[in-house]
Amino acid sequence: MFRKRTDLACEAVELWGEGAERAGELSGVISSERKREGFPVATVEIINERGADALGKPMGKYVTIEIDGLINREDKAFSRAAEALAAELGEMLRLRDGESVLVAGLGNRAITPDAIGPETVKNTMVTSHLIEHMPEAFPGIRRVFAIEPGVLGTTGIESARLIKAVAGIARPDRVIVVDALAARRTARICRTVQLADTGIIPGSGVGNAREGINRETLGAPVIAIGVPTVVDAGTLAADIASRAGATWDDNPEALERLGAGLVVTPKDIDAYVGDISKLIGYAINMALHRSLTTEDITMFLG
Amino acid sequence: MFRKRTDLACEAVELWGEGAERAGELSGVISSERKREGFPVATVEIINERGADALGKPMGKYVTIEIDGLINREDKAFSRAAEALAAELGEMLRLRDGESVLVAGLGNRAITPDAIGPETVKNTMVTSHLIEHMPEAFPGIRRVFAIEPGVLGTTGIESARLIKAVAGIARPDRVIVVDALAARRTARICRTVQLADTGIIPGSGVGNAREGINRETLGAPVIAIGVPTVVDAGTLAADIASRAGATWDDNPEALERLGAGLVVTPKDIDAYVGDISKLIGYAINMALHRSLTTEDITMFLG
Amino acid sequence: MFRKRTDLACEAVELWGEGAERAGELSGVISSERKREGFPVATVEIINERGADALGKPMGKYVTIEIDGLINREDKAFSRAAEALAAELGEMLRLRDGESVLVAGLGNRAITPDAIGPETVKNTMVTSHLIEHMPEAFPGIRRVFAIEPGVLGTTGIESARLIKAVAGIARPDRVIVVDALAARRTARICRTVQLADTGIIPGSGVGNAREGINRETLGAPVIAIGVPTVVDAGTLAADIASRAGATWDDNPEALERLGAGLVVTPKDIDAYVGDISKLIGYAINMALHRSLTTEDITMFLG
Amino acid sequence: MFRKRTDLACEAVELWGEGAERAGELSGVISSERKREGFPVATVEIINERGADALGKPMGKYVTIEIDGLINREDKAFSRAAEALAAELGEMLRLRDGESVLVAGLGNRAITPDAIGPETVKNTMVTSHLIEHMPEAFPGIRRVFAIEPGVLGTTGIESARLIKAVAGIARPDRVIVVDALAARRTARICRTVQLADTGIIPGSGVGNAREGINRETLGAPVIAIGVPTVVDAGTLAADIASRAGATWDDNPEALERLGAGLVVTPKDIDAYVGDISKLIGYAINMALHRSLTTEDITMFLG
Repeated sequence: MFRKRTDLACEAVELWGEGAERAGELSGVISSERKREGFPVATVEIINERGADALGKPMGKYVTIEIDGLINREDKAFSRAAEALAAELGEMLRLRDGESVLVAGLGNRAITPDAIGPETVKNTMVTSHLIEHMPEAFPGIRRVFAIEPGVLGTTGIESARLIKAVAGIARPDRVIVVDALAARRTARICRTVQLADTGIIPGSGVGNAREGINRETLGAPVIAIGVPTVVDAGTLAADIASRAGATWDDNPEALERLGAGLVVTPKDIDAYVGDISKLIGYAINMALHRSLTTEDITMFLG
Repeated sequence: MFRKRTDLACEAVELWGEGAERAGELSGVISSERKREGFPVATVEIINERGADALGKPMGKYVTIEIDGLINREDKAFSRAAEALAAELGEMLRLRDGESVLVAGLGNRAITPDAIGPETVKNTMVTSHLIEHMPEAFPGIRRVFAIEPGVLGTTGIESARLIKAVAGIARPDRVIVVDALAARRTARICRTVQLADTGIIPGSGVGNAREGINRETLGAPVIAIGVPTVVDAGTLAADIASRAGATWDDNPEALERLGAGLVVTPKDIDAYVGDISKLIGYAINMALHRSLTTEDITMFLG
Repeated sequence: MFRKRTDLACEAVELWGEGAERAGELSGVISSERKREGFPVATVEIINERGADALGKPMGKYVTIEIDGLINREDKAFSRAAEALAAELGEMLRLRDGESVLVAGLGNRAITPDAIGPETVKNTMVTSHLIEHMPEAFPGIRRVFAIEPGVLGTTGIESARLIKAVAGIARPDRVIVVDALAARRTARICRTVQLADTGIIPGSGVGNAREGINRETLGAPVIAIGVPTVVDAGTLAADIASRAGATWDDNPEALERLGAGLVVTPKDIDAYVGDISKLIGYAINMALHRSLTTEDITMFLG
Repeated sequence: MFRKRTDLACEAVELWGEGAERAGELSGVISSERKREGFPVATVEIINERGADALGKPMGKYVTIEIDGLINREDKAFSRAAEALAAELGEMLRLRDGESVLVAGLGNRAITPDAIGPETVKNTMVTSHLIEHMPEAFPGIRRVFAIEPGVLGTTGIESARLIKAVAGIARPDRVIVVDALAARRTARICRTVQLADTGIIPGSGVGNAREGINRETLGAPVIAIGVPTVVDAGTLAADIASRAGATWDDNPEALERLGAGLVVTPKDIDAYVGDISKLIGYAINMALHRSLTTEDITMFLG
């Protein structure tokens, strides 16, 4: 059977609900919704192995923020969205004074829909070397490291192994990994940010058994920040066909073929990736150093 | 009714053939196929108004080359593809010694699937100023001008009007316009180059009544070179639904909505656009200055 | 004799003062100094032909703002510098309601110290097409066009001729041309913005007799905005030698050779060009549409 | 006393020769000159501690190739220069079949004159992951890893430490580090490539005591490839003043100040860095996999 692809926990719940074969309730999963700074926030908590099996995701907390307002360029949307994201991230990080953080931007900077991670690193304030030289000059600023591990095809080294090696040097108290995701619904492309306290397994959607980037492998809590930038073309096709009253379950190979290399993405993905990477970078900076304003960050980043 | 979108004449013939309401033969259109340097070449000639009405395209000759081999990185594929494209282009241009050419790269360089035109200009040898200063130093080289007119949103001026103004200064004997296209079939994305002796009407696929870039407006023959880089998401959906045995003709608005802003494109479109723009640039240089080798062009462009 | 190169009127006054052969006073030139938003502002007015001959510049008003504070990343320096620059520009433009403006960004975007013009265009709000379609939706916004004419080597066409052709289409009431300059003093590199109501002659520092971009050629007042990004290496050498107590007047060829192709520039010129182009773009937007805040501009530009 | 800065061993010999206080001969240093593929090759061997002290560089072999021909775009210069560089590199690497290599591109990709390292990595064929999956499909190709360690200011981690961690994962038999250098003479900017079997100490020219990237720290021989892209402005000034018959030894602070942040560099450094990075990347690929042609490399890199 063709499996519709999504990296979003909230969509995994949706897909579970559509499964004809599934009777009864989804157990081991707690969902809730609320608003923050006017943006809808959905939480999915997977609390046991049954929930993890049902959704195909590790146990943990997944928070999704819808940032339509930003995309529509509403008044002051950028500041509000950065505030909302920083607040959610801060709650997940639970940092104490003096604790340090490593930010890792996953993905390939040469492929626009995959460049969210590297672009976010550009908008992250790296401070550890400054603080080591002049700790008194930066009150309220914690030590931050950042790394862009590249992809296997450009380094020859799995990004998980590279980040592990960097964590061995920097010995951070928390790790934040930022990556591009695939959604199931086109409406969520570049309009949703997912935070998860589970870390991530790079390329897990593709089915490769790669090493995870999480507390087990790095020895520190890992928060994953992800943004869907594409819908797999096969997933879109399967959805369209089923809405058209047909199923393509008898032809999964055709859908796999369609999805191999082809994605559905906004025509102006270049601009979206720039905007959202800036948003996430600013939110990270604000969550890590609570005294900063967006003006301070702009001056620091240049 | 929802209209499947394509900028390729060979696909327009295909779509005509699928129209249930159309009985009899497509008159006023002559199609043929052959190979050049091992690449399949399809020709569609629209010879009268009935053909033009049927296909929704101006009368003229449309030549399509399939460059799968290049995409698959076969041995020496780049040189062969450049040779093939240069030969087809040369036949359409029919230049005499000393005639000059203006190359115009349409599209928005900040949007990857729309950047074929601007990127091609980067790979075009601009020579007119050199020849004016030292004509004897460049035997066999003709005068070439190049312009990247941008898009309405970044200049405030229609690209057709800007090119007309530039043609008024440069007074070229031929104009080549390069642009990104939309295909109907995903299999053709970044794998097909279309040459047409009709010029083009920018954004014509979208339905705006814009001024054309053609012999009538510029006073010189205009050859259009186009490469499909996307399939409109609505067109893909309609195709998928009909293959799934359903039609969405009762819901054209949903398809229009899907297509608005969303496109189906290769995940590594950045690399494809770079490769194909280089191919077209080299083919243009070889067609305009027949004595040049690819090595010469590499040295000139730096 | 080797001629020290500068595009800044205030430095031309300096160099005149150093000329041993010149006795008496510089007539036909009025200089003054003041502050705006805390930034030093120097004005040089050339009021007759004697002044123009002495300084080697056309008659007109040249205003220089020193933006050291911005470079040093002082608090709120960006907003203050944009306000100051917008105010000076506004006084030179003297626009009435409904008058339109063409912004032209001169230079080669592929050469960092020459990319101030093209980068400024990226930060300029282009509005004419929006206002033509929905005039009532944009109260207080005037029609703005923008053009990046490229350089002779990439288009084959003089930028002055291209801008003239575009002005023929857009028929603007004012033209703003933005370009990178050469300074004589390294301390002024990327720290000074010059406004001039004289327009400019592209590449005039190099000694080529090119057509001007000014009221005479375009039929509308032309304000030039320039930023020195380099010091000619020969000029630096001559200055150093003379400070060391020697003169190189007997060896002008060595200095010309040194200056040919070599420039003195900040190591992080890439970052400076980005920052200053953004500053100028914002100042232009604020001067043209007085009701806008920097937040509005950020939202518009994306 | 102001110390003229150079990272080139051949210039260090020159500067030693100019030192008035130095009597007698430079002992512990063997210099020689020859040609390869028509390009001048100079070798400086530092064979003992006296030589190392005199030149301020570690013991080892330094080979410099002058590639003026490339810069002047002579016929087939690229292929010849790549061949020459590959041959010199091959002799220094002395690789046996099956041995693997890590290529590290030092420097800041956002600062053009510092981007030689990162740009070279882009032109390096990374093969280790391919060979691990399908060893039989790539006969004659060795395992290559590549890393772009960034700079302290963008990661918070010394590049030497990061490379050490990566070497710990990849366990390469050789390491090649590529970096931008400072020359003393403007004539050598972007016209010279230095190979050294000593490894390097990043930022050593600046006087910081940083950890080395060499056999001692990495456990494998380290070959450094460097290209001067700038002359320190203070060094140029001191040279000019002394040629003008003056010395600035009484004013070293002024020269330090001039050199702080200002460099002398070609106006079109962007194009030079692109060309030379491509040259070095191709030479590395040819030295590591002797059966490859430049066409093969172009196809692989895309």
